[in-house]
Amino acid sequence: MPKQVDHQERRETIARALWRVVEQRGTTHLTLREVAREAGISLGQLQHYFASRAELLGFAMDLAGEQGARRVGRALAGLGERPHPRAVLRAMLVELLPLHADSRVTSRMSAAYVLEALHDEEVHARARGALLQGRGAVEQVVRQAIADGLIAADRDPVVETDLLLALTGFTTLLELRVVEPDAVLAAVDRHLDGLFAWEAGSAGP
Amino acid sequence: MPKQVDHQERRETIARALWRVVEQRGTTHLTLREVAREAGISLGQLQHYFASRAELLGFAMDLAGEQGARRVGRALAGLGERPHPRAVLRAMLVELLPLHADSRVTSRMSAAYVLEALHDEEVHARARGALLQGRGAVEQVVRQAIADGLIAADRDPVVETDLLLALTGFTTLLELRVVEPDAVLAAVDRHLDGLFAWEAGSAGP
Repeated sequence: MPKQVDHQERRETIARALWRVVEQRGTTHLTLREVAREAGISLGQLQHYFASRAELLGFAMDLAGEQGARRVGRALAGLGERPHPRAVLRAMLVELLPLHADSRVTSRMSAAYVLEALHDEEVHARARGALLQGRGAVEQVVRQAIADGLIAADRDPVVETDLLLALTGFTTLLELRVVEPDAVLAAVDRHLDGLFAWEAGSAGP
Repeated sequence: MPKQVDHQERRETIARALWRVVEQRGTTHLTLREVAREAGISLGQLQHYFASRAELLGFAMDLAGEQGARRVGRALAGLGERPHPRAVLRAMLVELLPLHADSRVTSRMSAAYVLEALHDEEVHARARGALLQGRGAVEQVVRQAIADGLIAADRDPVVETDLLLALTGFTTLLELRVVEPDAVLAAVDRHLDGLFAWEAGSAGP
């Protein structure tokens, strides 16, 4: 099915053009026309692949999400055969934060997508679905670590998962250079130390 | 100086119109024309008070920040004469999160402002300044609590302040209904418990 492959390839090329526009000129005035110009095609050609701004943004977000998952996968593969859950959670969190160029584009696009979601039910449902899926993956690691005795049994896995996800709040602090990357990594490590250091907890053995 | 008062009043009226536009229709396509329409004035009249979109957004952000500070002040006043630093930090955090209509508008506007800041140096400097000021206020409470022996002396005040600010990451989770308000409050309380429960820490007395 070479036709279908071409179609998918063209859609990915357009999504990458969108990423470049987001990275270079921001999302405030993002238009399909601008993305078409960046992709070197006409607006009409772009609209053949994406009927609306929301559809293009959704596709570009999905593609960015897949690439992010692949980056996390590579980071986990580098941790050996049975990585410690602390290292797994750290790799997931670090990938979500705008600490390098690839994740910065994803993070900026996500921010624009969330704003769009507030006034577009379809975008809202899609963004919510992706976040719930990510939340589920983190909660699974937390629950397994509790089952394995690596996190204290009196910790609530739902609360601890929410707290881990909330650390994505470092995104804004990084983007505005209120906190430097080293300080963010120190804080993430401090949080993970507190989560896993159950010898130190009052409920410890 | 009735003229100056009028000028300030008119600017506040326009800022409130901007808030309504942000609340009702989002920030993605926010234009001065739309805000003028909402304020019931012409675009030319609006431009007499604000030369640019960035200037209007900056003023509206400052005004929202002042109102937020006043809400925190009222919440703190309700805590009695010498409130516990845990209650002070909780009041500050809760006010930053989109848990009620007023703070939701501020939070959505901030999100739009941060995106604008990525490609506008003046907005970046202004947003960064406001965040650094807020960060300083939180760090002061944390340092005093350490000095008073309410937070363990081996906690790093900079890292703990960063972790508290990172909890604003709940904003996105709330907006996309990935986490409910009650769960956010439970997680904030859990984090504060961990910060103040120094009897439980390995470095405790």
